[in-house]
Amino acid sequence: MTEFDLIYKLINTQSINRKDVLTGIGDDCAILSVPEGYSLAVSMDTLVEGVHFPESVSAFSIGYKSLAVNLSDLASTGAKPAWVTLSLTMPSADERWITEFVKGLFALANKYNVQLVGGDTCSGPLSVTIQAHGFVKKSLLRSGAKPGDLIFISGSIGDASLGLHSYNGKDGIHKYFIDKLNQPEPRVDLGLALAEIATSCIDISDGFISDLGHICEQSRCGAEVKLNDVPVSVDYKKYFNDQPDYTNAISFGDDYELCFTIGSKNIIKISDISKSLNIQLTCVGEITDSNTLKFFDDNHKELNLSNKGFEHF
Amino acid sequence: MTEFDLIYKLINTQSINRKDVLTGIGDDCAILSVPEGYSLAVSMDTLVEGVHFPESVSAFSIGYKSLAVNLSDLASTGAKPAWVTLSLTMPSADERWITEFVKGLFALANKYNVQLVGGDTCSGPLSVTIQAHGFVKKSLLRSGAKPGDLIFISGSIGDASLGLHSYNGKDGIHKYFIDKLNQPEPRVDLGLALAEIATSCIDISDGFISDLGHICEQSRCGAEVKLNDVPVSVDYKKYFNDQPDYTNAISFGDDYELCFTIGSKNIIKISDISKSLNIQLTCVGEITDSNTLKFFDDNHKELNLSNKGFEHF
Repeated sequence: MTEFDLIYKLINTQSINRKDVLTGIGDDCAILSVPEGYSLAVSMDTLVEGVHFPESVSAFSIGYKSLAVNLSDLASTGAKPAWVTLSLTMPSADERWITEFVKGLFALANKYNVQLVGGDTCSGPLSVTIQAHGFVKKSLLRSGAKPGDLIFISGSIGDASLGLHSYNGKDGIHKYFIDKLNQPEPRVDLGLALAEIATSCIDISDGFISDLGHICEQSRCGAEVKLNDVPVSVDYKKYFNDQPDYTNAISFGDDYELCFTIGSKNIIKISDISKSLNIQLTCVGEITDSNTLKFFDDNHKELNLSNKGFEHF
Repeated sequence: MTEFDLIYKLINTQSINRKDVLTGIGDDCAILSVPEGYSLAVSMDTLVEGVHFPESVSAFSIGYKSLAVNLSDLASTGAKPAWVTLSLTMPSADERWITEFVKGLFALANKYNVQLVGGDTCSGPLSVTIQAHGFVKKSLLRSGAKPGDLIFISGSIGDASLGLHSYNGKDGIHKYFIDKLNQPEPRVDLGLALAEIATSCIDISDGFISDLGHICEQSRCGAEVKLNDVPVSVDYKKYFNDQPDYTNAISFGDDYELCFTIGSKNIIKISDISKSLNIQLTCVGEITDSNTLKFFDDNHKELNLSNKGFEHF
């Protein structure tokens, strides 16, 4: 048994056996069956050591997060997750590390009935590429927002940025923030619930200001946002002694909440979804027919945030 | 524009626009439509600099080969290629390098009407992960070989191993061998033609001895091979002064020819396929009901090759 057979053996221990996986791990290709009437949604993301996570992150968290960021992409498209493929590159096959990595990966995969169906393992600098596959009838895109639509954010944002600060040793260890950074919860059920209602959707990976910018760019519209309406957590407020830094919360990414737009007639439905999924959904502004993204303070005074993540806009 | 927007821009230049790509590059997910009555075949492979290719390989060849190895997996499954996703990790966005890489990738992709539909670009040590997606009605697996089936190899094998020797400076530069190593032709049309006929199939990536071993292992059978019937090229023979090293040819991989088995009643059909595709198809032995893989010389004397790539067997 070579050292990379070890990875193969550990990866092959998943207990999920979906009926739509006709051939799984072990042949040249995985053979998969997409249900009739559905399209296939695919998302691929790579996490590289030293770029996307520091060396000190646990193998469990790397396994978990590398899947989470992909399931988050499926969520923002309104797709139901089904299968993943994994390419794991690592310097040597460290059994303890891989065991923990696989635990983190399968913890999240099993929760959403997602089966690992194939991939590759190689020797090289530590890097994880995952492709997630889901089914979708009507997909949520970035391009459907219209002037007058309301802009929502799920949950709260900003905690992941403080996790990064904690890692960088700026603020000691704040386990809560680090967990939010390393083990984000992809909003899969929310994405599915929004599929018939939202006019556009994106997951907040680059930062709200930048991701809302993507929606505006692709929907050819602008937006106005009330900065202090942006939802932040109790712990985030506490960290800033009840004067939370909203600019930080909207500038950094990695929260993997959803930002979406709806026609105002659907506001009751959003309230229902929020209650049934027990997820806070906060309206932070409105889509406009301009081509600019504007932020306002509580006194309706425009704020100058033009240097915060507008690269694509 | 950030440097990685440059990659995105170059990658977005492909001229192929398939109708089954409902949403391509630019949203959180690609949205794809699998034709009714077909299953989806997927294969993911990673090439890492310094492991799968030396630093001196051209960007064109890296782009070409990273797709070729995946199309070869589709071929061995009998699948028709449709889409690819790409994760490209590189230290910095070198425009000239990426332009050549994309040229190599698209040279092969366009030949098979394969559209790049999504992926990721990151900063980090040079590494390319590609997932290829194809359609298949009846898939060719490793597991269907039966005692009495004939074992075939397409084209010739061994040239890629000499390409590697050439790279390592052992034999100077032999352009022919290096091309065979860096720009292998995936046997897509052959795989499609074999889909209804072959009982098992694999692409020769690890080396014939090892890959036939995979077939035997998964088909729970053995095999007997006449070593000197293994097809090698005219140049391979010339390199060895007409006394070709067959053991080398069956031990090294990277040739991406197909190894497949058929029931003996189908031998005429194989001859027809060989003629119509203009691909040499050579019978090298027979599947047995033992659990061992045996090689014989011209005098029916068994050869001891047990230390050549039997790891999985």
